[in-house]
Amino acid sequence: MEIHHIGVATQDADSLVRLYTDLLDGDVAHKESFDGMDIVFIDFGSGYFELLEPHSDGVLSEYLSEQGPGIHHVAFQAADIDAAIAHAETLGVNPIDETPRDGAWGHKVAFLHPGSLGGVLVEFVQH
Amino acid sequence: MEIHHIGVATQDADSLVRLYTDLLDGDVAHKESFDGMDIVFIDFGSGYFELLEPHSDGVLSEYLSEQGPGIHHVAFQAADIDAAIAHAETLGVNPIDETPRDGAWGHKVAFLHPGSLGGVLVEFVQH
Repeated sequence: MEIHHIGVATQDADSLVRLYTDLLDGDVAHKESFDGMDIVFIDFGSGYFELLEPHSDGVLSEYLSEQGPGIHHVAFQAADIDAAIAHAETLGVNPIDETPRDGAWGHKVAFLHPGSLGGVLVEFVQH
Repeated sequence: MEIHHIGVATQDADSLVRLYTDLLDGDVAHKESFDGMDIVFIDFGSGYFELLEPHSDGVLSEYLSEQGPGIHHVAFQAADIDAAIAHAETLGVNPIDETPRDGAWGHKVAFLHPGSLGGVLVEFVQH
């Protein structure tokens, strides 16, 4: 599966967009307010950053309070997200989302538990 | 710049290699013992995971003791790594490595300080 994006938790997406697009020569590909977050995808050609800034209380604002800003997850592009989740379960990996749900940018998404993946929060994304 | 790899700190690279290659359909591209670490690159077509397992005391074993296993950094492929570092400095980003140094797999590498990058540890990589 190809790496689709790296999710970055932040309390100041606007500043990071300016910095990352200049420093790393990326282009803003999509902006959206979704699920209590301002979300910006920056395109680097081989994959995206997904900046996530919460504007209400929730899982991400709790994460920021506890962990501080930084890399939050990595997303892989699944051709068949239901099959990918089923395969994960056969390998003993616990899905956070047992069935895909609606994500930003019109994607279907499902997260897997980092505890069964060496501390890495993995997301499956299907266009 | 294209995303080159995502660095993952672990205390058990062998298990993670088996899991990630199966779950995420990647291929082992390179293995090396370098700078006190066992390093494995897994190729996902659009970028790599770089698994990092320390086998002696150092920065990475300290990181694992403090933060636990998981995503450690993200690396971008620089066409001219010296120019990329110089550009970072003009943007007020502090380099950890002011001049490139030798990295794994014969790369030239330089890390930038996460404190000036929204908590994200960014590495420049030049082949």
